[in-house]
Amino acid sequence: MSLSRGWTRRLERHVPMLLWAKTYDKDTLTSDLVAAVIVTIMLIPQSLAYALLAGLPPEMGLYASILPLVAYAIFGTSRALAVGPVAVVSLMTAAAIGNLGLTTPAEIALAAGTLAFISGVILTVMGILRLGFLANFLSHPVIAGFITASGVLIATSQMKHILGIQAHGDNLIELVVSLFENQHLTNPITMAIGLLTVAFLFWVRKGLKPLLLGFGLKPRMADILAKAGPVAAVVVTTLAVFIFDLENKGVKIVGAVPTGLPPLTMPSFSPAMWNQLFISGLLISIIGFVESVSVASTLAAKKRQRIIPDQELVGLGASNIATSLTGGYPVTGGFARSVVNFDAGAETPAAGAFTAVGIALAALLLTPLLFFLPKATLAATIIVAVLSLVDFSILRKTWTYNKVDFAAVAATIFLTLGMGVEVGVSAGVILSIGLFLYKTSKPHVAEVGLVPGTQHFRNINRHEVETHPSIVSLRIDESLYFANAAFLQDLVYDRVACDQPVRHIVLMCSAVNEIDMSALESLEAINTRLKDMGIKLHLTEVKGPVMDRLKRSHFLDELTGNVYLSQYDAIRELQPQII
Amino acid sequence: MSLSRGWTRRLERHVPMLLWAKTYDKDTLTSDLVAAVIVTIMLIPQSLAYALLAGLPPEMGLYASILPLVAYAIFGTSRALAVGPVAVVSLMTAAAIGNLGLTTPAEIALAAGTLAFISGVILTVMGILRLGFLANFLSHPVIAGFITASGVLIATSQMKHILGIQAHGDNLIELVVSLFENQHLTNPITMAIGLLTVAFLFWVRKGLKPLLLGFGLKPRMADILAKAGPVAAVVVTTLAVFIFDLENKGVKIVGAVPTGLPPLTMPSFSPAMWNQLFISGLLISIIGFVESVSVASTLAAKKRQRIIPDQELVGLGASNIATSLTGGYPVTGGFARSVVNFDAGAETPAAGAFTAVGIALAALLLTPLLFFLPKATLAATIIVAVLSLVDFSILRKTWTYNKVDFAAVAATIFLTLGMGVEVGVSAGVILSIGLFLYKTSKPHVAEVGLVPGTQHFRNINRHEVETHPSIVSLRIDESLYFANAAFLQDLVYDRVACDQPVRHIVLMCSAVNEIDMSALESLEAINTRLKDMGIKLHLTEVKGPVMDRLKRSHFLDELTGNVYLSQYDAIRELQPQII
Repeated sequence: MSLSRGWTRRLERHVPMLLWAKTYDKDTLTSDLVAAVIVTIMLIPQSLAYALLAGLPPEMGLYASILPLVAYAIFGTSRALAVGPVAVVSLMTAAAIGNLGLTTPAEIALAAGTLAFISGVILTVMGILRLGFLANFLSHPVIAGFITASGVLIATSQMKHILGIQAHGDNLIELVVSLFENQHLTNPITMAIGLLTVAFLFWVRKGLKPLLLGFGLKPRMADILAKAGPVAAVVVTTLAVFIFDLENKGVKIVGAVPTGLPPLTMPSFSPAMWNQLFISGLLISIIGFVESVSVASTLAAKKRQRIIPDQELVGLGASNIATSLTGGYPVTGGFARSVVNFDAGAETPAAGAFTAVGIALAALLLTPLLFFLPKATLAATIIVAVLSLVDFSILRKTWTYNKVDFAAVAATIFLTLGMGVEVGVSAGVILSIGLFLYKTSKPHVAEVGLVPGTQHFRNINRHEVETHPSIVSLRIDESLYFANAAFLQDLVYDRVACDQPVRHIVLMCSAVNEIDMSALESLEAINTRLKDMGIKLHLTEVKGPVMDRLKRSHFLDELTGNVYLSQYDAIRELQPQII
Repeated sequence: MSLSRGWTRRLERHVPMLLWAKTYDKDTLTSDLVAAVIVTIMLIPQSLAYALLAGLPPEMGLYASILPLVAYAIFGTSRALAVGPVAVVSLMTAAAIGNLGLTTPAEIALAAGTLAFISGVILTVMGILRLGFLANFLSHPVIAGFITASGVLIATSQMKHILGIQAHGDNLIELVVSLFENQHLTNPITMAIGLLTVAFLFWVRKGLKPLLLGFGLKPRMADILAKAGPVAAVVVTTLAVFIFDLENKGVKIVGAVPTGLPPLTMPSFSPAMWNQLFISGLLISIIGFVESVSVASTLAAKKRQRIIPDQELVGLGASNIATSLTGGYPVTGGFARSVVNFDAGAETPAAGAFTAVGIALAALLLTPLLFFLPKATLAATIIVAVLSLVDFSILRKTWTYNKVDFAAVAATIFLTLGMGVEVGVSAGVILSIGLFLYKTSKPHVAEVGLVPGTQHFRNINRHEVETHPSIVSLRIDESLYFANAAFLQDLVYDRVACDQPVRHIVLMCSAVNEIDMSALESLEAINTRLKDMGIKLHLTEVKGPVMDRLKRSHFLDELTGNVYLSQYDAIRELQPQII
């Protein structure tokens, strides 16, 4: 009995669907259905557009919005996350596949599916190994910089569809040069459709809702209508092409999109292709996971719910494996659509499954209607969507707060724009970690004295404090480990190499969270050297876990001075000896 | 005038020779000459032996011990460091060149010279860019583990010369398998020479000096005679081969060594070769620099002198460029010979220059005498030298002190033995940094209370302390940065999600040395969430540099509680409000 309950719990942890399915009722169903309808309307043009961005046929965007949503509904832990193709991952997919130099559509589709499969396997394995914490090593500013730079890249890459010309490039410079070279080929009608759609969509975002509210519509209804803006643009521009025969006037259209449910597909298992795609798959997994988790946890917090990062990895992994088996390409949790899903009242991941049904119906019934849809309209929806992600204020914020963060963000933005998404995000991660290590290798050390009338010690350069010439109290503001062990030695030797008659060095260890073996050797060397000079070494405020470890070494036996519970105890005991 | 003095100082900083040359006198000269003679005697067999270990003709070992020493004397800052071919770098050279699959001696010599040149350029550039601190990222235990494992590898690789058979391999398993496969071909006379020499050299190390002292010799003289042990072994075994015609009985000999000064050589500038050798050159530079600096700073400390790591990079870089231009291979400061140089009384780097003259004389005059020198004798000197470096006690020490250090050391030893020096040392560095980051991403957090009768706060689980149910004081034992920002949020939310009527969360920041942008965003999120729950957030003991930065953000304006100078102030103020 208890065994079976234990099994149920384990199963529930790995298949979170079982948890919410138990209490699913008619009210929840209604909420989820309403949300699903709204997200479906939003997702149809987006799916087509992001497939275009990824350099894939439009139907792959639809296929990527069906089975992955069902897989996430079963394995994911967020109640509001909407999974599918997203802008940044689509751009990264385009970059990854562009590297391979493929030519036939079949090869490109196979590579995209394989990339999704690799990414799905990586995510699932990371989830099983509980490596969700690795995502923490991307700092927030680096992610913000990366998203902003990617937005600029994506918007620029779509300008070719707005102008109706050719342009290629993985980075901003190549793209801009390529656009300028071909700008004399601009098709005026395409440009008119593109720019009008962009203007219309911006107006829908900012101006339509207040207008509808002014007409007396209910806020909820006004919201839904405003979200349907891209659908209206799709309908109007498609009709315009059809009626005025604009295709023969040079306007590029989507053309024939296969009708029917997603096909069953198999990823490639060729070692050569895995070799070429693995790093890209890893980067897509990391970026997709970070983007998805940050959206999911923001939304969960609003309802006092929680997401489980390791299980999220499994959920996203399952989604990507599902997309690779059903003709799609890499997916993750999207920001805009998840917010819409949440605002529309989605209560459980079932809303995602219902959305999948909606998209499947679209794939079955609507694709013939998309024949005359201009590519410029899709490009316009992408541009408007990604420009809302562009926010260079992170540069100003980090500049005032912390130059190290600023350096990481600036490098990420610069390299993403100048050398493409893969170089940009790799550099951001390496730089964040490198700068952190550099900082800890040269720690801040303050000489401290007693704040009069208290038992509290502060920096002698910042506060009015009492000191004694024969006692030097140093507060080390960093854990002591291999990277700063040598620094500590130099620092102490420099401090005692003066005319002052120093008799005691007191290391205040309130900020020392760790003393590793290398640092222990340095402390031993300092102790021996000071002993030769007739100076005693004392430690104060050593934390429990650090003290436990010191007790396991010989250091405390050899220490010339004492270990005091508090800095105040040390000074109270040492000062009378001298006076 | 002052301009010219400024220039002189800058020149002196970059050419440290100018500093000691000014006060050079007859006494210093005598000391340096005596040291040079002793080191020369020691270095002749060592140079030949290490060239053999590196898979190079013996004269390259001599050439690597001439001009590099002069270059270091000009640019180096250590007064006692003896530069030349060393065991670990020779093994790494063998591994690097072995990867290239070269066959002719000329190609191999060119590759070795190019490797030295690449390493010289890397070291010099690092010195100019003041990147000496990078060496700190190799933790002491990882270096100790690497040296020990390399010692075992080197000793094993020399067994083939002792047995007079063929054996190949970059790692312990390959070497041992290869030795076993060919052991039936063992040449008994070679083995006798090899094992007797090993036994003799061990006895010289341990037993000869006490014996000589017993005969009434002065300690200094006894020391010099003991150091000449390898030379005696070379002379005796060479004579034995010559007299008993052992060459025709299968004993492998050194054979013809060209007579004369080092030739002028040019490294290769082929991009393909640089591409293949660059990573090896980088690893050799790092390992060589770390080994050299640790010896140099130990010796400098004994005389209250100091070395300048960035200038040491330039000194070693100049040595390696010099070796590459004069028929040598990568060099660095050696442990054993530097200690001998120091003990023999070397006062300035001029001792190194005099040693260079000694080796040059040997290259001019002694090489014909080396014709009958058995390779087994050289192998025996290597084995005895490296086994003194092997010290597995680092495993026990780290096991008792710190499991994280233990993991890094064990992995370094295991991978060096199992997969070779390059994989071993790379893994050691990556693992040291990775484990440090992992640790800081899940920091120790203690809930603290007041130690009665003091103003001091300690962990409630370790000490008898006073607390109040409505105030939760958390001491965070780590800097707050991107890798643990999410962890902090979860931790605080978990702590307040209980039945206890928490009204105040006090974060004691005495151990928080840094709050980066990501962590600031987490603190803002925590503040907002706690505000919704009617809980105030307070900070205490925030350090100066951290506080400066917080003041530049909006966080302090939004903070629901206060920032207190000390934890005691906070509790004194908050407690009455509640009572």
